[in-house]
Amino acid sequence: MRFDESYSGKVFIMSRATYEEADAVIYGMPMDWTVSFRPGSRFGPARIRESSLGLEEYSPYADKHLEEVAYFDAGDIPLPFGNAAKSLDMVEEYVEGLLNDGKFPLGLGGEHLLSWPIFKAMYRKYPDLAIIHIDAHADLREEYEGEVLSHSTPIRKACELIGPENVYSFGIRSGMREEFAYAKESGMNLFKFDVVEPLKRVLPKLKGRHVYVTIDIDVLDPAYAPGTGTAEAGGITSKELLEAQIHLAKADLSIVGADLVEVAPAYDPTEQTTIAASKFVREMLLGWVNKR
Amino acid sequence: MRFDESYSGKVFIMSRATYEEADAVIYGMPMDWTVSFRPGSRFGPARIRESSLGLEEYSPYADKHLEEVAYFDAGDIPLPFGNAAKSLDMVEEYVEGLLNDGKFPLGLGGEHLLSWPIFKAMYRKYPDLAIIHIDAHADLREEYEGEVLSHSTPIRKACELIGPENVYSFGIRSGMREEFAYAKESGMNLFKFDVVEPLKRVLPKLKGRHVYVTIDIDVLDPAYAPGTGTAEAGGITSKELLEAQIHLAKADLSIVGADLVEVAPAYDPTEQTTIAASKFVREMLLGWVNKR
Amino acid sequence: MRFDESYSGKVFIMSRATYEEADAVIYGMPMDWTVSFRPGSRFGPARIRESSLGLEEYSPYADKHLEEVAYFDAGDIPLPFGNAAKSLDMVEEYVEGLLNDGKFPLGLGGEHLLSWPIFKAMYRKYPDLAIIHIDAHADLREEYEGEVLSHSTPIRKACELIGPENVYSFGIRSGMREEFAYAKESGMNLFKFDVVEPLKRVLPKLKGRHVYVTIDIDVLDPAYAPGTGTAEAGGITSKELLEAQIHLAKADLSIVGADLVEVAPAYDPTEQTTIAASKFVREMLLGWVNKR
Amino acid sequence: MRFDESYSGKVFIMSRATYEEADAVIYGMPMDWTVSFRPGSRFGPARIRESSLGLEEYSPYADKHLEEVAYFDAGDIPLPFGNAAKSLDMVEEYVEGLLNDGKFPLGLGGEHLLSWPIFKAMYRKYPDLAIIHIDAHADLREEYEGEVLSHSTPIRKACELIGPENVYSFGIRSGMREEFAYAKESGMNLFKFDVVEPLKRVLPKLKGRHVYVTIDIDVLDPAYAPGTGTAEAGGITSKELLEAQIHLAKADLSIVGADLVEVAPAYDPTEQTTIAASKFVREMLLGWVNKR
Amino acid sequence: MRFDESYSGKVFIMSRATYEEADAVIYGMPMDWTVSFRPGSRFGPARIRESSLGLEEYSPYADKHLEEVAYFDAGDIPLPFGNAAKSLDMVEEYVEGLLNDGKFPLGLGGEHLLSWPIFKAMYRKYPDLAIIHIDAHADLREEYEGEVLSHSTPIRKACELIGPENVYSFGIRSGMREEFAYAKESGMNLFKFDVVEPLKRVLPKLKGRHVYVTIDIDVLDPAYAPGTGTAEAGGITSKELLEAQIHLAKADLSIVGADLVEVAPAYDPTEQTTIAASKFVREMLLGWVNKR
Amino acid sequence: MRFDESYSGKVFIMSRATYEEADAVIYGMPMDWTVSFRPGSRFGPARIRESSLGLEEYSPYADKHLEEVAYFDAGDIPLPFGNAAKSLDMVEEYVEGLLNDGKFPLGLGGEHLLSWPIFKAMYRKYPDLAIIHIDAHADLREEYEGEVLSHSTPIRKACELIGPENVYSFGIRSGMREEFAYAKESGMNLFKFDVVEPLKRVLPKLKGRHVYVTIDIDVLDPAYAPGTGTAEAGGITSKELLEAQIHLAKADLSIVGADLVEVAPAYDPTEQTTIAASKFVREMLLGWVNKR
Repeated sequence: MRFDESYSGKVFIMSRATYEEADAVIYGMPMDWTVSFRPGSRFGPARIRESSLGLEEYSPYADKHLEEVAYFDAGDIPLPFGNAAKSLDMVEEYVEGLLNDGKFPLGLGGEHLLSWPIFKAMYRKYPDLAIIHIDAHADLREEYEGEVLSHSTPIRKACELIGPENVYSFGIRSGMREEFAYAKESGMNLFKFDVVEPLKRVLPKLKGRHVYVTIDIDVLDPAYAPGTGTAEAGGITSKELLEAQIHLAKADLSIVGADLVEVAPAYDPTEQTTIAASKFVREMLLGWVNKR
Repeated sequence: MRFDESYSGKVFIMSRATYEEADAVIYGMPMDWTVSFRPGSRFGPARIRESSLGLEEYSPYADKHLEEVAYFDAGDIPLPFGNAAKSLDMVEEYVEGLLNDGKFPLGLGGEHLLSWPIFKAMYRKYPDLAIIHIDAHADLREEYEGEVLSHSTPIRKACELIGPENVYSFGIRSGMREEFAYAKESGMNLFKFDVVEPLKRVLPKLKGRHVYVTIDIDVLDPAYAPGTGTAEAGGITSKELLEAQIHLAKADLSIVGADLVEVAPAYDPTEQTTIAASKFVREMLLGWVNKR
Repeated sequence: MRFDESYSGKVFIMSRATYEEADAVIYGMPMDWTVSFRPGSRFGPARIRESSLGLEEYSPYADKHLEEVAYFDAGDIPLPFGNAAKSLDMVEEYVEGLLNDGKFPLGLGGEHLLSWPIFKAMYRKYPDLAIIHIDAHADLREEYEGEVLSHSTPIRKACELIGPENVYSFGIRSGMREEFAYAKESGMNLFKFDVVEPLKRVLPKLKGRHVYVTIDIDVLDPAYAPGTGTAEAGGITSKELLEAQIHLAKADLSIVGADLVEVAPAYDPTEQTTIAASKFVREMLLGWVNKR
Repeated sequence: MRFDESYSGKVFIMSRATYEEADAVIYGMPMDWTVSFRPGSRFGPARIRESSLGLEEYSPYADKHLEEVAYFDAGDIPLPFGNAAKSLDMVEEYVEGLLNDGKFPLGLGGEHLLSWPIFKAMYRKYPDLAIIHIDAHADLREEYEGEVLSHSTPIRKACELIGPENVYSFGIRSGMREEFAYAKESGMNLFKFDVVEPLKRVLPKLKGRHVYVTIDIDVLDPAYAPGTGTAEAGGITSKELLEAQIHLAKADLSIVGADLVEVAPAYDPTEQTTIAASKFVREMLLGWVNKR
Repeated sequence: MRFDESYSGKVFIMSRATYEEADAVIYGMPMDWTVSFRPGSRFGPARIRESSLGLEEYSPYADKHLEEVAYFDAGDIPLPFGNAAKSLDMVEEYVEGLLNDGKFPLGLGGEHLLSWPIFKAMYRKYPDLAIIHIDAHADLREEYEGEVLSHSTPIRKACELIGPENVYSFGIRSGMREEFAYAKESGMNLFKFDVVEPLKRVLPKLKGRHVYVTIDIDVLDPAYAPGTGTAEAGGITSKELLEAQIHLAKADLSIVGADLVEVAPAYDPTEQTTIAASKFVREMLLGWVNKR
Repeated sequence: MRFDESYSGKVFIMSRATYEEADAVIYGMPMDWTVSFRPGSRFGPARIRESSLGLEEYSPYADKHLEEVAYFDAGDIPLPFGNAAKSLDMVEEYVEGLLNDGKFPLGLGGEHLLSWPIFKAMYRKYPDLAIIHIDAHADLREEYEGEVLSHSTPIRKACELIGPENVYSFGIRSGMREEFAYAKESGMNLFKFDVVEPLKRVLPKLKGRHVYVTIDIDVLDPAYAPGTGTAEAGGITSKELLEAQIHLAKADLSIVGADLVEVAPAYDPTEQTTIAASKFVREMLLGWVNKR
């Protein structure tokens, strides 16, 4: 007697009914408590789902239909308010569970620090892991205001975990001098301002690798994604991000997980950010899940 | 593996898991296609549910807790876009099913025309039905722009169905001259401007009757409920509407169903309308459901 | 072949087609250039007209229909941007023309300084003029930042023109100490905080007088009228202002003109301020025009 | 005594005073009742006119001045709320009248279904008609939720009316798999994602033809046009749409009518969508009207 | 060469230039990290200061001028993001410093948990302290989601610190059943729904006592204060809160400190909440500071 | 005891503490009283400062850190409301003082007319001055509505002052026919639509010259800068404006002052315009100040 949920705005459209029948699992991470400037991304996952109602199930980019991918939207992990450490532990444990069950984890943030426990779980399973990081901000700080667990540090910690040479950042247009210096000295791969062109050059080098992709919505110019906490002028367009997604889908490598973070609906009065985000999630599902 | 839904914003908080165990059923009616001025109430039910997340389960007004009432949120009836006639039929059939199953129907609009099919279903079951109508607008037109099925006609049709003397309207501050004339001549009971005082005078006369209550959110002043299609200055406060709800809860009569309509989130940038609406729904559940 | 204008949102609903057949003339004064804090009231008249589309033509307050009053909406006076002195001259000349033609002037602001040239034109025609002023602010300054022609001075200038004993201010909850002192010493009639009660006491004293009424929308609490330049907490409700209008309509005196000023749509995302303002204009038309 | 209307925001700037002296007629179609996701485009025409106040009358793109084109803004056709079938009939009849009087019809929507009756009227007059369709969505469905008259079907119906080979769609980035399949199989001309480049290739083929142009504002990325019902990320820029308009103006073909649809002011808090739309209308007037 | 700061919007208007010459100190507490529903109050203090620019320095309520009170706006305490425990320690230490210097502490929040360290500092100095708490929420939880330091617990902790019989809560309309039960059993003084009437009854009992006053802006109805994290329908008006402030100013007791918390500008598009808040701060300064 | 101001949002981040130690001075010009369409830019300077809080101090564009530039944010010049003539005199006098003290003037508007007095002061000091003007509008009118001092005239007046051949306008996409004709006939240098390409061609010609740069934020498309009074579709991106800034920084010429005008926060609900503007100011400081 309850009406069909897969078109209710409560789960991403066309979510399968059960976890068991899914190859990929969408999960929300409603946390923004280490965010300094404008919080609110904790509400991102719910609004991305709601905006998915406006999507077509078929993509002319991928020439595929969502029914061709088996995924389950598990809802939001119930992270404890204000407790960053415990929240990160819960995310790590949850993603580890997904990997153990052979699922493709597709996380929705929430703040970017949430990618850090995911990286740890992914790396335990895939010791040859490479990370593709698409973002406006380098996120390479050692700490932020004395705090190591901050939305400004996850990529630095990733470098320390899997080796800087295995981390590829694209579209970076903001950071401290020290972050850019670290990128240069450590041997990690940081590409400033642009995404599509450097990505096309990098992808052949990742041939056959296991790759995790983390996208911070603020890589887009605020014109395209005003609904984020630390909007930074001078970014790329939605068209360019879609193009990058297609290149990743077609590349000869194995994508083993992905996230989209920092969508903050409070700064998105026209809903354009969540509308765009839901489309990026659709393309992740269509192009990336079955590349494993 | 899916996280608990009763606190997800996808159903009204504390919804029971199944239809079977419920005494009352919350259902959404996402239709606004006969609305003349500012459409958008089709999104009302979803946002009322989402705002319910901010509510306490206990009410100091009723001194009761939501766990004391067994209700199930069934989601939105999938009404066909633009087809008012068919939508109304679906609502009537759905409510009839609820009544057959012995459930208390608690409808969320959507436009006010949606109360009309509910009235029909209720009247078939309760031939002594009285209707309490709380609204800024008389809704007593015979037609609107040549259309009998309009958001301006449901109370007129109710009068014709159950007899004008069984219809009680409160808070009315807008209508055509003909509507006020009809109210006077037909013998229906229309109280202008105020709600609480006339309601207190009327309730003893309804002793022992079966009563259906329909509330149009625009009875509130736009200061309290800007998120509605035909906001009308000079209305009552949220405090007064809560007071009216308590009087109804304590009255010696049998409430057999209720609806809350015309919540339109597009005009509600601060969410204050859906926040208030979710509280009114909580008080309906706590105070009215078990009065049958 | 052009569609009927009286329901287009371009003129106040039910405006007669020509100036000649009208007893009252609605005119806009799109000026806000002396406003210090938040400009934007220049767009007030256009949006009040647009919101009039949502009104019923019949009022249950006055028990009258707009077709019973002959009025013409003349549009906005084309005031020269940034030139306050010339704008005021144009308004004075325009209102003088209306009075010469025997019309009831109903002005829509725009900033409150615009009432000053109207006062001058009214006083020339009605040497026994009394002014009823409903506002949050005393507007009794001698100058503002060195400027005599300011939105803070019109009532002071009115006192100097027609004598302070002929000026009645209601609802005042903001002003300099000197303004309140002037009010007390000069013998003008200033009532703090409230409107309805003091107005009821004052009206009998104005029996038989020619009265001009100027209403600043900010007499309402910001909850009821956020769309204004100098919102001031602690104000009255829309219901109270409507009640004051009815008392004026029923009083034994002659209302010879009126204005409603300081509606600023830029701060009114829900349109509740212009919706309320259009209702106040309707009640002015129904209750005040034919009292001359 | 009424002030000049051609600069009032009530008609598109520089509208001639009478229908008779005009070569082109601007008319609004305030209907959105078959819209599924976010209604509101019924208010589009009025706000486009209002935003025209901010335009220069001269265009450096066309190097022409609006005084060089004789057009009349007829206001909005008074379409009956909720009645799609009758509304479409009224539009068809109205456009037929315009064509009989030798006018260039320039329609403002309202939802895209409104183009369907226009197509019918145009085709009766111009049996060699070609249609240029610029949009994010294919609009090639046979029906939507069981309804043939839907905002998702007008181009399909156009194909059936004038032959798919005479329909050219540009910028399409959303649709069902079946729609793209139909486009391919039927022989219609559908160009995905881009507008300017494929248009430049197509225009020579249309040499000498009678062409009707329909533009859905959502061909723009939501960054440029958030104010629309079904915003779709990944679109073109305003600059590109202006460029397309210029190419059309310079092409060796005869444009015999045009429309701009789906502008929905409720999702346009900054007014950027209506500001852009009014500019596109100006370029239609300057570049297209006298190409007949 | 820097322009005068006391009218810059950067400090509360008429702030003295130095700490030394001040009797009272305004300080901001930009923290919201334990907030569950809608964060954002960390930006409250800055926007209250900015809105103070729109205030008159003279109050007709208190019949006093801000120049009669010597206060210094110290800006915001630089609280470390996400670290609640350390933030609370910093606030406690700061307020202790103010008290040692003989200053009246006037805190601006920020979330309500911030009152807890203030209570501790106040109680050390004034062992006979009574607390007046004006709020929509009881804030009497023992913990929230397992966390003792939460925005839902400060009044419970206050009861435990100074004795429940010394705590007076007004306007409470939301809480768990356990909170209301605790209030009743413990002997604390909790008044539901209303503020002014119970306050008038209580004040004589507090004769001669040292009193700290904490106001949560959400005691106002969302109509008056939409800009807050946990808006709760059914609240009091701005007029009533001003009236309560005046009663406190006239009472025969010694106010030794105060705070105003939970102003969240992100939900305040019309700025009406910060406009009201700045007025409440003015009345605190005028009426309460010199009552010590 | 007052907390550090250079990170308070009250001054541009990293402002030095005193005027004396600065090479450049940031000053606000809060005036918009000659603006015709949508006023509000008077609040631009304050919000640009506030948004600077979200910036990194290091720029990967310039590879420089703000600590390498000594600047002082002097706040807003206290311009008298509504008095354009006097305001312009004050700006001229202020800038003259800065130049006498050897400071680089960096002005924040406010409306574009404010550049006119700056031009006069600059030209007195640098008789070989060239002006680079980046804008959507030509601003070449001789007068606007009979007023010579208007936001539409400053570049015309600049041409008359320093010779049209010394004025370079970029990105112009709006103006009267007469303005474009004047540009052509007078020998000034006006480049339509684009900025970066024509600028790259022009810069070598300005080798060794003293150059003043004035940027109107509306050169950006409204997608990138909705928060401005006369938004004009078809503009450039933030990325392009940043690129133009870098070219200017690297060019072999001496930049002796700059301004950024027409930021109007009232039309900027997502803050994207002020966020972008603060970044442009950072690049001005890093790239232009020490080029003198």
